[in-house]
Amino acid sequence: MIGWSHASTPGSLLRQIGRSALTGTVAGRAARVLLMFAVTAARFDSADPLSALELGERPEPSPPDGWTTITVRAASLNHHDVWTLRGVGISADRLPMILGCDASGVDADGNEVVVHAVVGDPGSAGVADETLDPARSLLSERYQGTFAQRLAVPSRNLVPKPAALSFEQAACLPTAYLTAYRMLFGKVALEPGSTILVQGAGGGVATALILLGRAAGHRIWVTSRDEAKRERAVTIGADQAFATGARLPERVDAVMETVGEATWSHSLKALRPGGTIVISGATSGSMPPADLSRVFFLQLSVVGSTMGSRDQLARLLRFCAQAGVRPVIDRTMPLDQAPAGFEAMISGDLFGKVVFTL
Amino acid sequence: MIGWSHASTPGSLLRQIGRSALTGTVAGRAARVLLMFAVTAARFDSADPLSALELGERPEPSPPDGWTTITVRAASLNHHDVWTLRGVGISADRLPMILGCDASGVDADGNEVVVHAVVGDPGSAGVADETLDPARSLLSERYQGTFAQRLAVPSRNLVPKPAALSFEQAACLPTAYLTAYRMLFGKVALEPGSTILVQGAGGGVATALILLGRAAGHRIWVTSRDEAKRERAVTIGADQAFATGARLPERVDAVMETVGEATWSHSLKALRPGGTIVISGATSGSMPPADLSRVFFLQLSVVGSTMGSRDQLARLLRFCAQAGVRPVIDRTMPLDQAPAGFEAMISGDLFGKVVFTL
Amino acid sequence: MIGWSHASTPGSLLRQIGRSALTGTVAGRAARVLLMFAVTAARFDSADPLSALELGERPEPSPPDGWTTITVRAASLNHHDVWTLRGVGISADRLPMILGCDASGVDADGNEVVVHAVVGDPGSAGVADETLDPARSLLSERYQGTFAQRLAVPSRNLVPKPAALSFEQAACLPTAYLTAYRMLFGKVALEPGSTILVQGAGGGVATALILLGRAAGHRIWVTSRDEAKRERAVTIGADQAFATGARLPERVDAVMETVGEATWSHSLKALRPGGTIVISGATSGSMPPADLSRVFFLQLSVVGSTMGSRDQLARLLRFCAQAGVRPVIDRTMPLDQAPAGFEAMISGDLFGKVVFTL
Amino acid sequence: MIGWSHASTPGSLLRQIGRSALTGTVAGRAARVLLMFAVTAARFDSADPLSALELGERPEPSPPDGWTTITVRAASLNHHDVWTLRGVGISADRLPMILGCDASGVDADGNEVVVHAVVGDPGSAGVADETLDPARSLLSERYQGTFAQRLAVPSRNLVPKPAALSFEQAACLPTAYLTAYRMLFGKVALEPGSTILVQGAGGGVATALILLGRAAGHRIWVTSRDEAKRERAVTIGADQAFATGARLPERVDAVMETVGEATWSHSLKALRPGGTIVISGATSGSMPPADLSRVFFLQLSVVGSTMGSRDQLARLLRFCAQAGVRPVIDRTMPLDQAPAGFEAMISGDLFGKVVFTL
Repeated sequence: MIGWSHASTPGSLLRQIGRSALTGTVAGRAARVLLMFAVTAARFDSADPLSALELGERPEPSPPDGWTTITVRAASLNHHDVWTLRGVGISADRLPMILGCDASGVDADGNEVVVHAVVGDPGSAGVADETLDPARSLLSERYQGTFAQRLAVPSRNLVPKPAALSFEQAACLPTAYLTAYRMLFGKVALEPGSTILVQGAGGGVATALILLGRAAGHRIWVTSRDEAKRERAVTIGADQAFATGARLPERVDAVMETVGEATWSHSLKALRPGGTIVISGATSGSMPPADLSRVFFLQLSVVGSTMGSRDQLARLLRFCAQAGVRPVIDRTMPLDQAPAGFEAMISGDLFGKVVFTL
Repeated sequence: MIGWSHASTPGSLLRQIGRSALTGTVAGRAARVLLMFAVTAARFDSADPLSALELGERPEPSPPDGWTTITVRAASLNHHDVWTLRGVGISADRLPMILGCDASGVDADGNEVVVHAVVGDPGSAGVADETLDPARSLLSERYQGTFAQRLAVPSRNLVPKPAALSFEQAACLPTAYLTAYRMLFGKVALEPGSTILVQGAGGGVATALILLGRAAGHRIWVTSRDEAKRERAVTIGADQAFATGARLPERVDAVMETVGEATWSHSLKALRPGGTIVISGATSGSMPPADLSRVFFLQLSVVGSTMGSRDQLARLLRFCAQAGVRPVIDRTMPLDQAPAGFEAMISGDLFGKVVFTL
Repeated sequence: MIGWSHASTPGSLLRQIGRSALTGTVAGRAARVLLMFAVTAARFDSADPLSALELGERPEPSPPDGWTTITVRAASLNHHDVWTLRGVGISADRLPMILGCDASGVDADGNEVVVHAVVGDPGSAGVADETLDPARSLLSERYQGTFAQRLAVPSRNLVPKPAALSFEQAACLPTAYLTAYRMLFGKVALEPGSTILVQGAGGGVATALILLGRAAGHRIWVTSRDEAKRERAVTIGADQAFATGARLPERVDAVMETVGEATWSHSLKALRPGGTIVISGATSGSMPPADLSRVFFLQLSVVGSTMGSRDQLARLLRFCAQAGVRPVIDRTMPLDQAPAGFEAMISGDLFGKVVFTL
Repeated sequence: MIGWSHASTPGSLLRQIGRSALTGTVAGRAARVLLMFAVTAARFDSADPLSALELGERPEPSPPDGWTTITVRAASLNHHDVWTLRGVGISADRLPMILGCDASGVDADGNEVVVHAVVGDPGSAGVADETLDPARSLLSERYQGTFAQRLAVPSRNLVPKPAALSFEQAACLPTAYLTAYRMLFGKVALEPGSTILVQGAGGGVATALILLGRAAGHRIWVTSRDEAKRERAVTIGADQAFATGARLPERVDAVMETVGEATWSHSLKALRPGGTIVISGATSGSMPPADLSRVFFLQLSVVGSTMGSRDQLARLLRFCAQAGVRPVIDRTMPLDQAPAGFEAMISGDLFGKVVFTL
């Protein structure tokens, strides 16, 4: 990697760089290789992930058959990117790896597109749901990620960007919002007007759950230990907010879980007979007592969910356009200032997404 | 029935009438019977239904075990009421019959309630879905209807009225809007952001389909032969409106049908492979060619729907409250001016519901 | 209760007793009351449940409106009956209580019938699924049970007995087999030819799961710590039997759980991505670690189930008749020898049901 | 095509032909090309389809990337093959086309396999259900069919053949039986013990519906105009057989339709409220009146179905192995006697499948 201090590359400069300006030598090979700007995990550092982050030139992607290259216009940051810098969910032989799961951009024909982040295994063609394919991966796990000027993905991973959404807004949707979308609409069949409890207001998926659940006509109740987060949850559409573990006014039809151990017992007790918990994460721990007697006696369901399909991303985009849902963005900055965005996420000082532009 | 010309009973008078003032003699019986004001089908007239309408005093209901009486505050008019005057769907031995399926009001404990219009057969206890009970009936078919000062219904047919909805608004929901709600959300599992074609913009159920479908985040396309109706459909939330039978920009996920023969072929051709038509009526005729080859080759589904359940009405009310959906009301008038409302419906000169108040 | 030692009442005598012979005085009332033979929990004894069992005369039932009385011809024993003698799931003010959930018999018109054991709350009319009604009860919990000459139940709780099944066979189905039926067919949609793991071969529900699952065309794998039970499981239709916790040849589509803590971790690991555990009991404990990360990452489902509906019992009976399924019966004896049946169940020395005849 | 009269090629000879013996010249090319024996549509003849059938040498397949070649051991005949000879469903530029959709055989590693007949479009990778892909085709439509010594298919189209099924039996399943399997188990959720009406006993799919529906524990009623067919239907497992259009003892849960116009009205009237018709063909015509009023008032569903997925074929095979289902075979003959099999099918003189062996 050619050293390219992000401090010395102001956004205005980055925006002027054309493809031809980036040719050079890479990895000792003498041949001319097209280069582009990218934000990369150069190594792993579990204690100081920021120190493993590098900005600089990386080779342009050369897409194999059935893949295509887009020009990235915006990309958003996820905790997944910080975990990668720490070495979680990726092995060292894949380094250096361009970070980033989420992106919007422009394809070779000039169409505005959003990128589906789940790449199925080529050998799994015909698998009905790519998220059930054990060989699937997210961008930046096996294939290079989205924090770069250009990005190669399978052609079918491109989804049209509705005109009503900006590139910045659209780039927020493929991971956290898609996860919330599948939890709410793909994993449980709730008629509008149902009551849904979202545990742990403040998290990225929880914020998406509130916005999307409310926009579909549900009554959303949230919990948080933090009064400020409870207030913000109500501001963005929650019907009521409660302290973690509080007794609710009535039993709910469904609970959306991303917290795990700290809220599991409350989630089970909150459900009406026949109700459903949908879970896509367990940030406080994965091993609460299962309380199986309650599960069978009240005929509850616990349903795991992860990410979503390409077709669900397309519907999510149309849903946001139709219903006026706009993702909550905490801050937007040029990609060459990515370290500041990572810092904000690591410090926990965020309400909404960090978006990088190009 | 005591003759009581509606012309001589201004709304202000009606509102002053107390229960005690209405005692008198009914049907030749000497005993004191409590009377109330009601709008009644006194006979059938298929050519001039309005001539079969009578306003006057009827006995107060005496609810059997498990039933309860509410004080009606608002009731809305449906085509069903005109059909009853014509003698359709009811036999002469049930006359005189108080008309009206839809009502909101106040129960004996002062709670504000909405009335579910479907009454199951007492012998069908335990039937999972009252709308599948062949012995079910709508209010004003077997049991006296809602166009009266007081109404008796099974206790479980009462659903709480959300404070966000007025009595007038709530009284619009139990028939047309509930029918639309079940079609959209109970009979097909569409994730928000789906594309739904509503045939026949302008009808009462079609208007409800547009409002509810849009409020749940779907993209709603409508058809009508009438340009004014197409324009109004867009005004209340349809994404696009097309002339009846027009080629659509792309295939849709689902079609909502209430028209029947005049649109059936178009509905089948509009669907993507695997798509669904939900049908709850066939105003233009019931016998179009079925086109079975298209149905099986593209794996389409045709799903019949009628009314909805008590629990669906409760969710519909909460949905309207949460999503800010308010039914379209064409006009509101005191119940003793009901003939003017019937006239407007018969002449077809309506966009939205006619609501009677008490 | 009139003392009536079961030792002095041989089966042949019981069979001769007519209704009229049983009149006498009960509970100090001077009036003539019709009496019948019954097996009753007279008190609770958690250490020695058998000592709480009494055989003798009890008043004939007098069914309220909407209920009917049948002449019992066969009844089967469940662990539930032993728990009742121990005082679990019932309060002392309901004593004496005739035991028994399961029965077949003859109704007043001479029809051969099977009794659905779940009685909904009268105030819950219109509840779609009686097993979701929190006020429901099983026979012998609130209402008198089936171990008696005559039994009163709501009329809709009677289901026709197919001629292909004997009274003894039919009396085995309403609890354990109905529970298994709903687990397999009501709580998960598995196409025939799926692979299902049944944990804990040997239990009553597990035996029913093997018979019913196999008869519907599934591949049934079972586990047990006991080699004899594994062998018997294969004899009655399991495809393969494994030691508890053993590594399986491949991942399964669904797991049927009644064991709980001792097998939970194995059940989760046995599932393919997207697979389902259905659970209706947890005899080894209810609080295993939930392993939420596995649940969400592999998108597993955990679905609680309890009993079944009246309509499911009717289908179960037709299924058994059509598919030639006959419940496994360990022994059959006259009702007045019930203590011997209870003893066998308490000692655990059973493979299949204990049936009492009248 | 090299002329090779089937009369001069006895089965014993065919079985001795090795791959090396079949090299020669094809289509004027001088190069050595490996040849194999195949049964081909050489042209179209709508009046005399048999005259368009040719037996002789065709080039060995050369599978592209992701495809594999199997040695065919058995193949079964479908009406589809006769339609192809008539020029229905295929265009002349694809001639000559090796016929046959169904096959079993041995793959390159010696595994016994069954071939899934639906080939998705390569550009449709990631389509959840290949039968919903408008660009899909059946073997012998775009790609060469199964009536040949060797066959190339996408690797994922191979499914393991259970040892319990012979090659001949397994070769009957991929079209008619898979169609029936999806109709019964994929398109409607019926608990075992349901009552299913199969219209038109005697057809290939109808026979499969009877065998598979019965093996899954349903009560199967059938109709036919032909008494002999009704009797045979009962022999293979139907519970009762009725004359076409006859009044049934009670309403059914579902109807399986392949007849269309001649039975459609009866099918709609046979259903209980909320029941479902599944349709996969319309041999008597596709345009009966739709009777929409009945559909919506009784909340019926009409669900189209075509073929099945690769995973469904795998489950079907396991189901047959577990449940002892064996397809009904009318006759088995060596592939070089294929014209006799076609003649039997065209004359309608069949009960069960015609199987060709190699």
